[in-house]
Amino acid sequence: MLERFHVPTADEVRVSEAALRTTVESIFMALGIAAEDARQGADVLLYADLHGVETHGVSNMLRVYVRQYQDGRLDPTGELTILNERPSTAAIDGGNTLGIIQGPKAMRIAIEKARNTGAGIVTVRNVGHTGAVGYHAMLAAHEDMIGVSLTAGGALVAPTFGAEARLGTNPIALAAPTKTLPPFLFDAATSSVAGNKLILASRLGVTLHPGWIASWNGTPIMEEAHLPERGQFLQLPLGSTREMGSHKGYGLAVMNEILCSILGSALPSMLDADSGSKQFLAAYDISAFCDVDKFKESLEDMLQKLLDTPPAPGLERVIYPGVAEEEERAERSAGGIPLHPEVIEWFNATCDELGVAQLETL
Amino acid sequence: MLERFHVPTADEVRVSEAALRTTVESIFMALGIAAEDARQGADVLLYADLHGVETHGVSNMLRVYVRQYQDGRLDPTGELTILNERPSTAAIDGGNTLGIIQGPKAMRIAIEKARNTGAGIVTVRNVGHTGAVGYHAMLAAHEDMIGVSLTAGGALVAPTFGAEARLGTNPIALAAPTKTLPPFLFDAATSSVAGNKLILASRLGVTLHPGWIASWNGTPIMEEAHLPERGQFLQLPLGSTREMGSHKGYGLAVMNEILCSILGSALPSMLDADSGSKQFLAAYDISAFCDVDKFKESLEDMLQKLLDTPPAPGLERVIYPGVAEEEERAERSAGGIPLHPEVIEWFNATCDELGVAQLETL
Repeated sequence: MLERFHVPTADEVRVSEAALRTTVESIFMALGIAAEDARQGADVLLYADLHGVETHGVSNMLRVYVRQYQDGRLDPTGELTILNERPSTAAIDGGNTLGIIQGPKAMRIAIEKARNTGAGIVTVRNVGHTGAVGYHAMLAAHEDMIGVSLTAGGALVAPTFGAEARLGTNPIALAAPTKTLPPFLFDAATSSVAGNKLILASRLGVTLHPGWIASWNGTPIMEEAHLPERGQFLQLPLGSTREMGSHKGYGLAVMNEILCSILGSALPSMLDADSGSKQFLAAYDISAFCDVDKFKESLEDMLQKLLDTPPAPGLERVIYPGVAEEEERAERSAGGIPLHPEVIEWFNATCDELGVAQLETL
Repeated sequence: MLERFHVPTADEVRVSEAALRTTVESIFMALGIAAEDARQGADVLLYADLHGVETHGVSNMLRVYVRQYQDGRLDPTGELTILNERPSTAAIDGGNTLGIIQGPKAMRIAIEKARNTGAGIVTVRNVGHTGAVGYHAMLAAHEDMIGVSLTAGGALVAPTFGAEARLGTNPIALAAPTKTLPPFLFDAATSSVAGNKLILASRLGVTLHPGWIASWNGTPIMEEAHLPERGQFLQLPLGSTREMGSHKGYGLAVMNEILCSILGSALPSMLDADSGSKQFLAAYDISAFCDVDKFKESLEDMLQKLLDTPPAPGLERVIYPGVAEEEERAERSAGGIPLHPEVIEWFNATCDELGVAQLETL
């Protein structure tokens, strides 16, 4: 996470993992969600908050989820249905509840299939927000498998050369297990910057970097600028401009639409704004390909080689995807999760409204 | 392909697809490659030349392949061996011959497994260059499957913040079948620009765009510049700088190393410079997830929506991955494939040396 997104230390209020988990579960249950589903949903949110993925933690997302259940846009009792199934595959309907509840169940189906055949591939349609996509991928890594987790949903990003939004920020995650080093965990939007980072920048009052957005007519904004009003800008694909490779970010975003939406019998958001989020989840059983211990040793040799790369002038170190998140987790597990006072106020009001015990702060 | 890479029309010599195919097959057979393998390898090269993927066609690659067989670095009679197998997976050793010969055979194994279980996932180690990765993915699309094709190999790209090359340009391809529109075919390096484009820019004497490379010490070069001497620059990951998302291109490149190299019981090039190319190939049988006709209809609705996106000021049109390549194919199938005179000279000399009939020009 870039420095500009960190909550200023003077403002922050810290809460313990346990207290935040209890409050989030209670809020979900007060909305009519079963205890086990509430635990699962809270675990995905807490994962984001613990790993420093502010954009997908309670601050940005929980209020959206609460509103969607209260408005009836999501169904707290929505059930998972298998539409089509083969030994290695399943197409699943999520019953219009949150993706942070149904996604992990779907990944467990993929894991079971991978145990039987070597690979498990599952699509999920008709769910709300899927949270940090890395969470779902990590479920497979915990089982000595490689986990892949893609999400499609929304229409915020313009195609290369385009003047209208067509694609979601459509993130890609891949997780692979290690022995002692932090696991490899890639989790990134296919847009130049995650959509939630724009909201966060706006809340923190910081400017956006050149190449993050285009003006309303599709022209990339290549200088520092504050976020324009909603509707007055478009997000850019990873690569920012055609010359720097935005056709690649654009192509990856469409890839997610094909694997998550169209393969999963759902429409991409550009064709149906109400189609919600769609997921593609894959588990590859490492033992089907090679010796698991040897895999982890080679992986750690490679990751160590990356960590040992001499840094460019003025820079401190080279890391790999998953390292910063693991460091954040260690720090926050011990010292608590920092929240903006405005978020604490929201918790206080929401707990009151739902008749749930207040969030304890440290 | 950016305009700067097109062969100037005044210089070009055109050859027919049939003539080029015959000559390439003859060269391969003269090197000791069996007729069927020669046909397969030529088909991958011709695919690149026909689709305008100059960087992976005969101009850039065939001379490298010939030298590698002549030097004994590749084995013209190398055979494919299955190391490990499960109903949906196979780990394959390519016997140290070209990836453009073994990759398609491996993808056919993945396709067969997908027909039986819904998904087929195959790794390939110990091969030479894999050619245009999109070719392998398209083999699955021709069978009403989604094809995924990843390659890892080489160490040209610096990690984000790094001052030494660690990763290959590690391309990603995904293909999906359509009814009447050009198939969706994403095929792109995870570096800011494909490695072969730098060689091509050098041959054509054009400058590189800001953000394509870093200086030898890892600092991104953010202005137009000519390609420095070999060893005096590093390639940058897609995203170019940390602020614009180079950690995403970097993460995708490492993902390829995990799926292609480590899962396939090979070492990434950063740990073993002689480990050659490694592939990860996947086929997902569309009929295992949904109705194939409905899939194609939804896909075409989406692709048409993308084509109909209004363009940004000063730009002509919005396309999707695969459109420009299909247009090039139609044009070149009819009018021939343009080659630089220097490439024709190479063919003349090589055909003489190998005792093969000269390449016919149009």
